[in-house]
Amino acid sequence: MFPAVTRAFLLSSMTPVCRSGVTVRRYCMKNPTKLRVSEAFLDAQVGEKVRIQGWVRSFRPQKQNLFLHVNDGSSLKSLQVIAPAAMNDPLLGFGCAVEVRGILKKSPHSKQPVELEAEQIWVIGECNPDFPFKIKERHSLEYIRQFLHLRCRTNAFSSLLRIRSEATAAVHSYFKNNGFLLVHTPTITSNDCEGAGELFQVEPPGTTFANEGSFFSVPVYLTVSGQLHLEVMSGAFPRVYTFGPTFRAENSQSRRHLAEFFMVEAEISFTESIEDLTKVWKSAFTAKIVINCYPKSYIFLSPLHLKDTLDDMLRKSFPVITYTEAIDILKRSSETFTFPTDWGCDLMTEHEKFLVKHCGNIPVFVTDYPHDLKPFYARDNQDHPKHTAAAVDLLVPGVGELSGGSLREERLDLLRSRLGECGLEDTYSWYLDLRRFGSVPHGGFGLGFERYLQCILGVDNIKDVIPFPRFSHSCLL
Amino acid sequence: MFPAVTRAFLLSSMTPVCRSGVTVRRYCMKNPTKLRVSEAFLDAQVGEKVRIQGWVRSFRPQKQNLFLHVNDGSSLKSLQVIAPAAMNDPLLGFGCAVEVRGILKKSPHSKQPVELEAEQIWVIGECNPDFPFKIKERHSLEYIRQFLHLRCRTNAFSSLLRIRSEATAAVHSYFKNNGFLLVHTPTITSNDCEGAGELFQVEPPGTTFANEGSFFSVPVYLTVSGQLHLEVMSGAFPRVYTFGPTFRAENSQSRRHLAEFFMVEAEISFTESIEDLTKVWKSAFTAKIVINCYPKSYIFLSPLHLKDTLDDMLRKSFPVITYTEAIDILKRSSETFTFPTDWGCDLMTEHEKFLVKHCGNIPVFVTDYPHDLKPFYARDNQDHPKHTAAAVDLLVPGVGELSGGSLREERLDLLRSRLGECGLEDTYSWYLDLRRFGSVPHGGFGLGFERYLQCILGVDNIKDVIPFPRFSHSCLL
Repeated sequence: MFPAVTRAFLLSSMTPVCRSGVTVRRYCMKNPTKLRVSEAFLDAQVGEKVRIQGWVRSFRPQKQNLFLHVNDGSSLKSLQVIAPAAMNDPLLGFGCAVEVRGILKKSPHSKQPVELEAEQIWVIGECNPDFPFKIKERHSLEYIRQFLHLRCRTNAFSSLLRIRSEATAAVHSYFKNNGFLLVHTPTITSNDCEGAGELFQVEPPGTTFANEGSFFSVPVYLTVSGQLHLEVMSGAFPRVYTFGPTFRAENSQSRRHLAEFFMVEAEISFTESIEDLTKVWKSAFTAKIVINCYPKSYIFLSPLHLKDTLDDMLRKSFPVITYTEAIDILKRSSETFTFPTDWGCDLMTEHEKFLVKHCGNIPVFVTDYPHDLKPFYARDNQDHPKHTAAAVDLLVPGVGELSGGSLREERLDLLRSRLGECGLEDTYSWYLDLRRFGSVPHGGFGLGFERYLQCILGVDNIKDVIPFPRFSHSCLL
Repeated sequence: MFPAVTRAFLLSSMTPVCRSGVTVRRYCMKNPTKLRVSEAFLDAQVGEKVRIQGWVRSFRPQKQNLFLHVNDGSSLKSLQVIAPAAMNDPLLGFGCAVEVRGILKKSPHSKQPVELEAEQIWVIGECNPDFPFKIKERHSLEYIRQFLHLRCRTNAFSSLLRIRSEATAAVHSYFKNNGFLLVHTPTITSNDCEGAGELFQVEPPGTTFANEGSFFSVPVYLTVSGQLHLEVMSGAFPRVYTFGPTFRAENSQSRRHLAEFFMVEAEISFTESIEDLTKVWKSAFTAKIVINCYPKSYIFLSPLHLKDTLDDMLRKSFPVITYTEAIDILKRSSETFTFPTDWGCDLMTEHEKFLVKHCGNIPVFVTDYPHDLKPFYARDNQDHPKHTAAAVDLLVPGVGELSGGSLREERLDLLRSRLGECGLEDTYSWYLDLRRFGSVPHGGFGLGFERYLQCILGVDNIKDVIPFPRFSHSCLL
């Protein structure tokens, strides 16, 4: 007979694995099939001998038997393990890592299809009693956020991580299936796409950031958008996209801002109207695949009924209104706004939220903003007296502005004079080149991935939808 | 009758599209199907009326007819267009952007299945004569590298971009299909995984990088590896990976170094030996899918016979030798090396190349390096008199070290004393925590994506396998 619970000591590589000095192979000539917990629920045959590795999420010793739930991150649901009370051990408890070998049995309880009748349990790694998460407690997202390095061990944050991984895969497969080429736009760049401040500068430590003698010979920044680099590619491919980290040195601690966030950006060539963008934009927004992939994780993490609201939202077409119409709506409303609603003023969050509600609480595209509010690359509509540019924002319930885009100025003369007005003609001579050699009408949009997740998951704080949040005065780990 | 070639001027959004003042819709009530060039070759019915948009890659006006090749980036192959000579126009020529409408016909030439008999051609964007690429010339990768913003318009670099996009998709699908969770590890970090220098520091411009008053309140850097962040996730998931930009402030202009490059990193929990890593590592390396997806682009870009060499290489298992065996091989060889080959010395590129050749010119895993050569997280093999750590490098033909990994020190006591020796116990108290709460044996590896592409494509210079290369004294665009 062998001890039921053995403390595991993994040996150095390339030697047979031993535990407590007993070579495992002696009493287990053939390892039983290793299953992930999700596989045990789905595929395994009742009666099969298997082994499961994971972390103990609940532990209940009773007179006759031990009951534990083992989770390995493959699903929200843990596998119930039943073992004779004699297998108990001081190290076995909430939070420890175990390997369990035994027979999968049909469960007498309707809550679970199968359970594992343990023949052997090894504690692979014990859990110190000062583990900040407690058995049977559902900790708040705020509480677990204090432990960035441990929060993946909770049901809530592991659910988020599964959904985020799936949402990323959905983004890539959407664009791939729709003929988009993935382009890795650079993180370090010498240009500033937005023409605004809020940049991070980059240099090896101890460098003075002078132009001469610095690492790159020019001042360089962390990218605020891959758009201009995607536009380079729009001169050879009809559809391109990028998906990666983007940066803003915004001194904000709000629940909607991060210093480092992920952005999906797409650029489409041979566009004829803003509709060419909004069509792709709306279908890229579809969240169903993501939600259906881990329905239990989704339901655990998100407010009740959000799924129905989302399903309903996505069935409808998104209203498209012009900025001028939006201003009319705001002016006619009985609402009192803090910020002005005159034509020419930027739409603020309070306005955006009102417009979303006004349109029936579904996402709304607002198009054709005042020309003077938009950066040099936005396409001039050449209208008057209200001079607008072919720029679009997507406003969504709860979040406000989720995403922005525009048709780009592809006409050399107009672009050159606009850059000239800003004193940027030399800086962007390469960008003008794109219009000198086979220029095509094109446009694109960028979508903040974390705000998108907030929107489809109903998560209030952006710091809870990214593994390692970075914001002003905080860069833990 | 309508002018055969019309200069296109796209109008502002939301209005009917006009060209030369003529509303397109007037003479084209129903637009013919818009096809990508690759679709014209694959799917389209001969005899169908279609429209194609792209850039002119060759232009040959003859007495009776014009012959042009139109490319839209969807494949290396361009679509041949034949038009009556009367459709010629001064703006039509090499490099310009066009839309062509016409009938797809079976081609009389065996080189192409179909050709397009033009009924209408519009020049959407003309090409200035100082376009740096010339008709019918095959420019070298060095030459086109001078024009980072235009090189995607060449056959060579558009081939690379297609393959890079496909290789990225292959990475994601490999890991997804093998049960790995994608984790977006951060770009900005307050730790330095490698414990070495060569970091980039990050701050808003004008900040003094002092701890007090800086944006994040602590000094922060661009990540050199996502490993430690993946290890966080190894406490809740059996398999995780990340794929994103990584940075080194290496003052090197070599053909193998970039300041910003992409890295694939994987971390596996519940490992029992280095073999658990090398198995995944080898299968992740498989390049066949990528090469088979755009075979013509691959053949265009890569040296002859590389595909056969690769196929052959991937059929074989990769040899695994220990560092100690590697040193023996080097010592026994008749080769004269510049750097010493004593036990305890690091393997240099000359050694790595020799070992690859010695093993039959296929990838080789070298394991169990001297303990003192490896960072604090590498698992101590606790052997003697030759004290080694369970670290592995993958050496490949042509490139040398492509990839490195290790089992990680999961034992709290050993890790704590190692960190103590380095004076890092406080800095990495969160990392020690991972070992205090349900620690499991785990390990992982990182693979430089650009070097991998160099290896499978046979591209000599790393700057030619990334869209926007960043290296010392160069950060264009």
